[in-house]
Amino acid sequence: MPNAFHEHDFLNSLLALPIDSRLSVPIGDDAALLKDKCGGILLAADTVAEGRHCERGPDAPEILARKVVRSNLSDLAAMGGYGESLLLNMILPENVGPDVPRRILQVVSEECALFDVALAGGDTVCAGDRIILAASVTGRLFSQPICRSGAMLGDLIVVTGALGGSILGHHGTFIPRIKEAEILSRWGPPSAMADISDGFLRDLNNILVASGVGALVNQDQIPISEAALALAEMNPSRSPLDHALHDGEDFELVLTISPHRFEIVQENWKIDTKLHVTGEVVESGLSLSVGGEVQSVDPGGFDHGV
Amino acid sequence: MPNAFHEHDFLNSLLALPIDSRLSVPIGDDAALLKDKCGGILLAADTVAEGRHCERGPDAPEILARKVVRSNLSDLAAMGGYGESLLLNMILPENVGPDVPRRILQVVSEECALFDVALAGGDTVCAGDRIILAASVTGRLFSQPICRSGAMLGDLIVVTGALGGSILGHHGTFIPRIKEAEILSRWGPPSAMADISDGFLRDLNNILVASGVGALVNQDQIPISEAALALAEMNPSRSPLDHALHDGEDFELVLTISPHRFEIVQENWKIDTKLHVTGEVVESGLSLSVGGEVQSVDPGGFDHGV
Repeated sequence: MPNAFHEHDFLNSLLALPIDSRLSVPIGDDAALLKDKCGGILLAADTVAEGRHCERGPDAPEILARKVVRSNLSDLAAMGGYGESLLLNMILPENVGPDVPRRILQVVSEECALFDVALAGGDTVCAGDRIILAASVTGRLFSQPICRSGAMLGDLIVVTGALGGSILGHHGTFIPRIKEAEILSRWGPPSAMADISDGFLRDLNNILVASGVGALVNQDQIPISEAALALAEMNPSRSPLDHALHDGEDFELVLTISPHRFEIVQENWKIDTKLHVTGEVVESGLSLSVGGEVQSVDPGGFDHGV
Repeated sequence: MPNAFHEHDFLNSLLALPIDSRLSVPIGDDAALLKDKCGGILLAADTVAEGRHCERGPDAPEILARKVVRSNLSDLAAMGGYGESLLLNMILPENVGPDVPRRILQVVSEECALFDVALAGGDTVCAGDRIILAASVTGRLFSQPICRSGAMLGDLIVVTGALGGSILGHHGTFIPRIKEAEILSRWGPPSAMADISDGFLRDLNNILVASGVGALVNQDQIPISEAALALAEMNPSRSPLDHALHDGEDFELVLTISPHRFEIVQENWKIDTKLHVTGEVVESGLSLSVGGEVQSVDPGGFDHGV
C-alpha cells in the first residue's frame, strides 16, 4: 500500500517545520528543550495503544499504564534528564466500566511516585474500541542536553544492559535509565545519546545520521539478553544476535563517548547496570565486524508491533 | 447503565489522589502549576475525538487540529496564563493515508504560530477507527494563578462574550481568551476564574463548590449568543436562555471579582470582547433571579456530545 501513512513519517513531517527559536533542542531528538531562566524545560510525549504496544487482554490496563510512564521517562533519560511532571490523556473504549480507568490511574499514580514525578492532571475521552494512553512529561537536565547530533570520530559506542527479546516481557517492565543518565551526564558526558525504542541498529543509525558520521559495530561485543536467546530457541528463523540488533523496545541507552571520558564514567559507575562497548564511531556507513570481517548492515531490518 | 464510566469521574479519581507538594496549584483546576524558580510552569492537557468533539466528515482533521490547540490554551487562559509549548499525540485510524496527518500537522503548526506557542514535538500511533488528538501545553502566568477556589461573598459574577449554541460553529472557531486573561490578571485580578467548557452554570458551579460559596444569577443579564437564538428557532423545545445557561464549549471565561477591582478592569478594557456582569456571589446555593423572583437551579441540566 504505497500511500499508507507510516508512524515514522510523523517525525519527518515535524522536522520539515521551521525551527522554533524558543527551543534550544528542536524537534527530532528524544525530547525537546524549551528555553527558560532555569536551564530549560525538557518536553516529551509518547502514546501507547492496546493491540499495538501490548496485547489486548485482562492485564492491558496495568501494562499500558506502566509503559506510558516509563517510555516517556526513558525519552528524558536519553537527553540526560529526569522527569518532573506528567500529564495523562486517557482514551477509553465506549461503555467502559469504572474499573478500567481506576486501575490505570492507580498504576500511573504509583509509577509517578516511584520515579518521583508529579502527576499534574490530564483528560479522558471515551471513544473507539480500545485503551490508548497518550502522556507527556516535563523534566530537567542533570547537566547539559545530550543530543543525537554530537557523535565524534573515534568515540566509543556504548550500550546499557542487554539487548533483544523485549517482547517476552521487558517491554512492559523495563526501568527507564535515569540513574544511568545521571552518572553519564555528571562524569562524561556522552557526545550523543538515544534510548533504544526502535531497535539498537536503528536508534544508533539515528545518532549517526544526526551527527554525520558512521559506526563500526563489533558483533562479538553486542550484549545479548536471555530473552533474545529464548526467542531464538522458540523460533530458530531469527538468531539471538538478530534480535539484539533489531528488536524494538529495549529502552536501554545507546551512546557515543570519547575513550577518555568513558574511563572516568567507569570509575564512577557505582550501580549494577552493565555498560558494554560495542564498537566505535568511524567516518561513514554502518558496518558490523564479524570475526575480523567487516560487512555493511541495514539499520532498519525489522519493524515490530506486538 | 449504573456501572458505566463517565468522563467527569476521571477528575474525581484524580482528586482522590494525595496532593503533590511540587504543584502549587494541584489537580482539579483548569491547569496545574508546577513549582520552579521562574514563577511556576502551567500544565494542561486536553483530548478531542472525531465523533465526539466534532462530527466525522471531510473537515474533521482541520476542525480537531484547531480545537485541540485552542481548548488547551483556553485552560491556561482560565488560570490567568498563556501558552509556551505544545506537544501533540496524534492517534490515527489504521491504514490512514499521508494526507490526514499532513493536514492535521499543518493546522496545529499554524495555530501554534497564531498563538505564539512553540510546537515541541509529539508522537503518533495508528490504532482504532477514528482521529483522536491528545495534546498538552506548558505555559506561564501573566501574574498570579487565578484558581477556582477564591470566590468571595459580594463578588460580581462576570462572563466574557456571549453564551450558548456553540455547536453551530463557535466550538471549532473560538478564540481562547488569552488577551482577556492578561487584562484581568494585570488590572484585577479576579478572585476565581474558569473557562466555560461544560456549560455556564456547570462551570460556575465548579467555582462555587471550590470556593464554598453560592451564586445568585440574574436571568436578564445572561448574554445570549446569536447561535443560541438560532438553535432555539430551529428547535423550540429549548429556549435561547436554556442554551446560554447549559450549552458546553463556549470557551468564554466565567469569573468572580470584587466590584472595586471590576471597575479598574473596565477602565483598562481596551479590547472589543464584551464583559457582562451576570450576578453576584452569595452565601450558598445556585439561584436564578427571574423578574425579581428567585428560584434554585440545577447546574448540570445537560450533557452535550456533538
